[in-house]
Amino acid sequence: MTSGESPPRQTEFVIQTSGAALYDFTTEVTRWVRGGVDRNGLLTLFVRHTSCSLLIQENADPEVQGDLAAFFRRLAPPSTDPSMAYLRHTYEGPDDMPAHIKAAMLPVCLSIPVADGRPVLGTWQGIYLFEHRDAPHRRRVAAHLS
Amino acid sequence: MTSGESPPRQTEFVIQTSGAALYDFTTEVTRWVRGGVDRNGLLTLFVRHTSCSLLIQENADPEVQGDLAAFFRRLAPPSTDPSMAYLRHTYEGPDDMPAHIKAAMLPVCLSIPVADGRPVLGTWQGIYLFEHRDAPHRRRVAAHLS
Amino acid sequence: MTSGESPPRQTEFVIQTSGAALYDFTTEVTRWVRGGVDRNGLLTLFVRHTSCSLLIQENADPEVQGDLAAFFRRLAPPSTDPSMAYLRHTYEGPDDMPAHIKAAMLPVCLSIPVADGRPVLGTWQGIYLFEHRDAPHRRRVAAHLS
Repeated sequence: MTSGESPPRQTEFVIQTSGAALYDFTTEVTRWVRGGVDRNGLLTLFVRHTSCSLLIQENADPEVQGDLAAFFRRLAPPSTDPSMAYLRHTYEGPDDMPAHIKAAMLPVCLSIPVADGRPVLGTWQGIYLFEHRDAPHRRRVAAHLS
Repeated sequence: MTSGESPPRQTEFVIQTSGAALYDFTTEVTRWVRGGVDRNGLLTLFVRHTSCSLLIQENADPEVQGDLAAFFRRLAPPSTDPSMAYLRHTYEGPDDMPAHIKAAMLPVCLSIPVADGRPVLGTWQGIYLFEHRDAPHRRRVAAHLS
Repeated sequence: MTSGESPPRQTEFVIQTSGAALYDFTTEVTRWVRGGVDRNGLLTLFVRHTSCSLLIQENADPEVQGDLAAFFRRLAPPSTDPSMAYLRHTYEGPDDMPAHIKAAMLPVCLSIPVADGRPVLGTWQGIYLFEHRDAPHRRRVAAHLS
C-alpha cells in the first residue's frame, strides 16, 4: 500500500514537561505511525509553541542529553546573567527570552520518511521534546502522515 | 475533502527587506493556504537564499524580535569585529559571512500541518522572514501545499 | 503529471566522509529527483545520524564552507578545550559531544519543493552533508519524493 492510496492522517501529541530538559516521545510517535498499516510515507511533526523545540538526538547515553542542555544554557543563559543585560523582553521571567532564542536555533518541525510503517530513524536516533522553560508546561506537537 | 483528493499547489512569496530584522508574512501564507478550500494537508516553505532565514516565533511582544536579532548579532558579529578575524570570506561586506552563519543555524525550510484549511500554528506563533543582510533585498520563498 | 498521480519514491544516499567538512551532494539529489519525470512535488532529506548534519549553503566561494566550519568549531570546540570542561559525555572522543551539539543546532532534515522535476534551489544554493566527526564515516541520508 503506497501513501498515494492512503489518505493523510493527523493527530496531536501532548507532552507534559517539568523543567528544562529533553523528553523522549519516540515510542508514541512510532506507534501512531504504524497504526496497523505497513505503508511508505512522510511523517511531519510541528511544535505549536515558541519556547520549546523538537530534537532528534542520541538515545543511548543520557549524559548526551544533559550535556546538550548544559551547552544551550551557557549559550543563552537566563536574562539575569550579566552577559544578557541587553535583553528587553524580561517581564515573563529570566528563562523566557533565552527560551525563545533556543526555540529559534533548534527545530520547530521535523520531517521523517516512513518505510514499511516505520520512521527511518537511525539506530541511535530518538525523537525529543526539548523544553526550555523552568516551570511545568503542557506542550502540543501536531503530526501529519501522508 | 482530503489532500489525497486535491492536487498539490505551489507558489512563491516575495518579501522586500530593508535591513537585518524579522518580517512577518503569516497573513500572506494563511490566505494562500486557505484558497477557498477547507482541506487537511501539509504546507512547506523554503527560502531560496543563503543569507536570510525562515523563522517561527512569538508574534505578541515585538521586543522578542528585537532581542532575537540582538542575540544573533552578538553570536555572529560583522567580520570587522576582532573576534571574527579568522573569517576569510569578507569581500562581499562585513555582514555577508555572518549572514551565511545565521542562515546555517536558523531554518531554511518549515513544514506545517494544515487542518481545515489553516496551518496549525499555535496562538503565539507567526511566520517570519529573518533578513541577515543590512542592504535591502528581494527575498523569494517557495511554497508547496499537498 | 502532478504528484497526486505519481506514487511517492524513496531512496538512500550514502556519503563517505573523511573529516569534519561540508560534502556537496546536490548533483546526486537532483539527478534522482529528475528520474526521467517532469513533475511537481516535495523532496525531503533526512540524515540518519546524530553527529553530522544536512545543510543548504552557498556553492560559489569555497571559503564560505571553510568559514562555516571554523565558526562552529569555535562555538562548540573539542571537549579537551578548557571552555568545555563541563561536558560529561567524553568517552567517545573529544570531537563526539561537540558533534552532537552541532547536530542539534543544524538541520537533520530538509524539505524542498520540486517544480518541473527540479528542486527549487536558489542560484547559489547547494545541498551538503556537514560532517562533524574527525574520523571517516559512512553517512546515510534517507530521501522521500512525493
